[in-house]
Amino acid sequence: MKEVWDKIEDLRYKPDMKVKDLVGDFDRLGFQSIQVHRAVELIKEMKKDNAKIVFTFTSNMVTSGLRGLFAQLIEMKFVDVVITTVGSIEEDFIKAHGNKFVIGEYHVNDTKLSAKGLNRVGNIYIPTDSYIDFEKNVRPILEKMYAGKKIWTSAEVIRELGKNVKDKNSILYQAYKNNVEIHCPAIMDGALGIQLASFQMEHPDFKVDCVQDLNAIINEFFDYKKIGCIVLGGGVPKHYAILSSILRDGMDYAVYITTASPYSGSASGASTDEARSWGKLKGTANAVTVHGEASIVFPLVIFKALDDLKFSKKTKAKKN
Amino acid sequence: MKEVWDKIEDLRYKPDMKVKDLVGDFDRLGFQSIQVHRAVELIKEMKKDNAKIVFTFTSNMVTSGLRGLFAQLIEMKFVDVVITTVGSIEEDFIKAHGNKFVIGEYHVNDTKLSAKGLNRVGNIYIPTDSYIDFEKNVRPILEKMYAGKKIWTSAEVIRELGKNVKDKNSILYQAYKNNVEIHCPAIMDGALGIQLASFQMEHPDFKVDCVQDLNAIINEFFDYKKIGCIVLGGGVPKHYAILSSILRDGMDYAVYITTASPYSGSASGASTDEARSWGKLKGTANAVTVHGEASIVFPLVIFKALDDLKFSKKTKAKKN
Amino acid sequence: MKEVWDKIEDLRYKPDMKVKDLVGDFDRLGFQSIQVHRAVELIKEMKKDNAKIVFTFTSNMVTSGLRGLFAQLIEMKFVDVVITTVGSIEEDFIKAHGNKFVIGEYHVNDTKLSAKGLNRVGNIYIPTDSYIDFEKNVRPILEKMYAGKKIWTSAEVIRELGKNVKDKNSILYQAYKNNVEIHCPAIMDGALGIQLASFQMEHPDFKVDCVQDLNAIINEFFDYKKIGCIVLGGGVPKHYAILSSILRDGMDYAVYITTASPYSGSASGASTDEARSWGKLKGTANAVTVHGEASIVFPLVIFKALDDLKFSKKTKAKKN
Amino acid sequence: MKEVWDKIEDLRYKPDMKVKDLVGDFDRLGFQSIQVHRAVELIKEMKKDNAKIVFTFTSNMVTSGLRGLFAQLIEMKFVDVVITTVGSIEEDFIKAHGNKFVIGEYHVNDTKLSAKGLNRVGNIYIPTDSYIDFEKNVRPILEKMYAGKKIWTSAEVIRELGKNVKDKNSILYQAYKNNVEIHCPAIMDGALGIQLASFQMEHPDFKVDCVQDLNAIINEFFDYKKIGCIVLGGGVPKHYAILSSILRDGMDYAVYITTASPYSGSASGASTDEARSWGKLKGTANAVTVHGEASIVFPLVIFKALDDLKFSKKTKAKKN
Repeated sequence: MKEVWDKIEDLRYKPDMKVKDLVGDFDRLGFQSIQVHRAVELIKEMKKDNAKIVFTFTSNMVTSGLRGLFAQLIEMKFVDVVITTVGSIEEDFIKAHGNKFVIGEYHVNDTKLSAKGLNRVGNIYIPTDSYIDFEKNVRPILEKMYAGKKIWTSAEVIRELGKNVKDKNSILYQAYKNNVEIHCPAIMDGALGIQLASFQMEHPDFKVDCVQDLNAIINEFFDYKKIGCIVLGGGVPKHYAILSSILRDGMDYAVYITTASPYSGSASGASTDEARSWGKLKGTANAVTVHGEASIVFPLVIFKALDDLKFSKKTKAKKN
Repeated sequence: MKEVWDKIEDLRYKPDMKVKDLVGDFDRLGFQSIQVHRAVELIKEMKKDNAKIVFTFTSNMVTSGLRGLFAQLIEMKFVDVVITTVGSIEEDFIKAHGNKFVIGEYHVNDTKLSAKGLNRVGNIYIPTDSYIDFEKNVRPILEKMYAGKKIWTSAEVIRELGKNVKDKNSILYQAYKNNVEIHCPAIMDGALGIQLASFQMEHPDFKVDCVQDLNAIINEFFDYKKIGCIVLGGGVPKHYAILSSILRDGMDYAVYITTASPYSGSASGASTDEARSWGKLKGTANAVTVHGEASIVFPLVIFKALDDLKFSKKTKAKKN
Repeated sequence: MKEVWDKIEDLRYKPDMKVKDLVGDFDRLGFQSIQVHRAVELIKEMKKDNAKIVFTFTSNMVTSGLRGLFAQLIEMKFVDVVITTVGSIEEDFIKAHGNKFVIGEYHVNDTKLSAKGLNRVGNIYIPTDSYIDFEKNVRPILEKMYAGKKIWTSAEVIRELGKNVKDKNSILYQAYKNNVEIHCPAIMDGALGIQLASFQMEHPDFKVDCVQDLNAIINEFFDYKKIGCIVLGGGVPKHYAILSSILRDGMDYAVYITTASPYSGSASGASTDEARSWGKLKGTANAVTVHGEASIVFPLVIFKALDDLKFSKKTKAKKN
Repeated sequence: MKEVWDKIEDLRYKPDMKVKDLVGDFDRLGFQSIQVHRAVELIKEMKKDNAKIVFTFTSNMVTSGLRGLFAQLIEMKFVDVVITTVGSIEEDFIKAHGNKFVIGEYHVNDTKLSAKGLNRVGNIYIPTDSYIDFEKNVRPILEKMYAGKKIWTSAEVIRELGKNVKDKNSILYQAYKNNVEIHCPAIMDGALGIQLASFQMEHPDFKVDCVQDLNAIINEFFDYKKIGCIVLGGGVPKHYAILSSILRDGMDYAVYITTASPYSGSASGASTDEARSWGKLKGTANAVTVHGEASIVFPLVIFKALDDLKFSKKTKAKKN
């Protein structure tokens, strides 16, 4: 047990305060605000230690509008590997084609909403037209791909989509342009899956081999000297990130931002300590969990980290 | 708005009460107890309507010991299709080979636990030896498979595992024996994935094609006159179930048992109403959500439903 | 760390199973089901150790219909002290006068519901008429009380209400009849508070002194050799129970059943370990927390404990 | 259903961004970030409508270090009435006497922590010495009070404590100085309660009458033309605020910031819609709920509202 402790200090409002100063003040507040601050410090430590950053998120984060920020983190080479669910891929592609999602309410008549051509995700509505557009735009890409070869990996499929969009706010576009691999271990679980399945109906020798994807990421992780993960939400992306590090004895750093609790034993709610017992996080690794919703918490964490690291200036300097 | 309502009645303890009588009394209690009762009634309605039952669960439910009950539901042909995560597959296989999991605590020193060869899932510990055993037992199956053909679907891989175990409490065994298909859209996200990946390293033409799996389930669902889903927890299995029903205009019935909340917009926490807006649940469909942990809630729900339907007797009768 | 562990066993359905057998099987399941089993065992240990039982619940449990069971526990002298919120007091009184609550839905048009004379608590509706009835019935009791003396404690006010109802399912009635004290540290926070306030407007020397209540409970706890608490939900009742034990160095046993999580630092979500740091729970005390909703979890826990202790038979025997 | 909707816009990082600009951008993000923005807009509307602001919080918020901000809101006359739990009162008093709380961890050995003289609230530790100091400092105040009169209300007791401290970051001090009433419906449920109880042991005619407090607040609310409430967390303060508005037909505005969910029917998790059914919130009232932890969410909400309203400048101008 530590002998010297930081003290709680009373927070004060100052006009026109900067995000970095508010989150700076969180270092002396308790509960989840100090966790936000600790997450920032750990991310700064990862970067200073030149750890590769594995960044995972579920598709609802892309639905929410954090997409632009994610694309920026890829563009700035702040993150090195992305793992997500297929909803992220298709929604990013849909938005890159100019379709707009709308802000709505959690409680509506969903049958009426459906009749109006809107599909709900929490308090966001996605127009059904977006998916018609998606189908129309994906099809020619699949045809071109098929002309080239018959068996693809998930990561290759995603890369082809990225090659075919141009939007600075697109995750697919920035990943393609900046050679950042996007992994999607459940690529069939969404509208893209339905397109792939429908394409295979007509071209039975068209295959997506999901085995090779795992080999690729395991080998990649093996080559890294240090790895940290930043995990938004749970699900398959979270588990796949830490699983893929198991053969190299686990992650060196981990930041989790989650609303799930550990009591049901779900992977989504599993703590960083649980990961330690599996060797998915090193016994000596530093880890921080923030219990909160990512659309609020993640901008606070990452804006402060980027400001403190003067990351965007460095990025510019490097580019010259 | 309804004009006639059921009234709350005071619950009374009676010695040696049966589960079916307690859950019967839940019909006059509020909050989640009435939801348990409503879930039972809806499942009974599904069965009376001869709806096919799609049953989804995440791997922690198998870890918890509900596995025997799941195997029984398959054996009794109470459920028609199973969708789960790969952890369920590998843990079922591990247990079918006689390995035992142990009951522990949520808060322990996980680094010490790891040193003792134990891996934690909530308050359950899985011996590391189980996975060594898993590797040893899976390898020859993969070799035999590979001798037959090079490209497999996820469902076929799982079926081969089922062919090679014999344990009445095994989901894999009962599914194989009773011709119930198990779908696993993220088959690479676990120890089985690592085995498949490692096998492919040596046999590069060995592939698992995940596209064909989706085609199979979509077609299966198309053929069903009525479908209901029973969804334990969230994640990919939940979403894949309702997604696969979208081309047939959605599920006819849905029961969700979950600890996730809808506020973060996650698929795990998405309500049955949200599914309606997507056409993943029919506008007119009946749906019930129980907010609770499945290791407590599901036995209550299903024991009562089986008792009321006298399902085990009917099953026996049919067998003769 | 323990060296010998219980093993997970596969749960199996058997027709017409008893609650005690299902909860018995929970001893080999993980996550919250084993917590239910541990809660049962701890309550049995409390009773065998002749510990006095402090029983706390929030008013929603009374709304839900657990009221009859609570009254029974008082009647059977299973619990020795009750701490609750004022909603419990007024709703118990209202139900004792024959008013019925109705079972509804979580999502309705609440403005319309209000127009129909219904007030919502989760998925339960309480008719506004109940409160008119409450006012009518409480007034004469206050007048009679005032004729006797001017300054009352909360516990005395509650006792007077209990003296004036007759209903075997009533907590107030059984507490009065069986000399079990009901404490209500926030007695003003409800319809009873409004009645007391309105009575004081006309009789300014009518007072409710809340200080004496705390002295009474602290002294009571001092006299007990051993104390255990069974805490349903959080709020003031939970905190008041453990606070009142602080001068006797804390509770000897504690069972919490809750849906709150510890991350926000709230008293409702505070763990039994946190209570230990305050001396509100002895360092050596046994404690179990079940994360779940009480309308499902509490009947399972208490039915099993009563069955195993053959408590109702003992009670009968004692009465003879 | 609305016909015109706001569109989701991609969030972008900009160096050294201000809180007001980030929260401004939340107007185009989904899930809880848009709820934060809506909460800000509703608070601005309350102020522009000259509504009186009822501000409620539980004691953990004071533990966390939000205390300084709360004191500032009172000093700036941004809030008109405060309702809280007694932990807030005693911790504010303790801090005003120079005692410091320390920032710790959620998972520690709490028995060892206790042995070191530390008491835990989530990830904050409070030295036991603080309470010895509290006792020493409160006693003379009670003696002086008793010399004046024998029967006190809760609000009067709290006011006397405020009269005896001097600290710009103190809620008690600023409330006393600025004539803002602090209500505490469960004043006995904490260390102050124990002091009051112990004082009464020696002076049996010393009383705290909690009935008069409710009359005072009801009358106060009656006089207000418009009222809005800002509710952090749940518990008695939340319920007492909306209850006290019932005789004037409910609040005109409500902002809830909470981590509790509505499924258990608790008052803490009750939605603003539920309040409408009771007439505790007007049918036509505007209301916003943010699901999140207040130590993160509240500074974002209130800093943005104060910046947009240029409240601190107005305050200064008014003072001249």
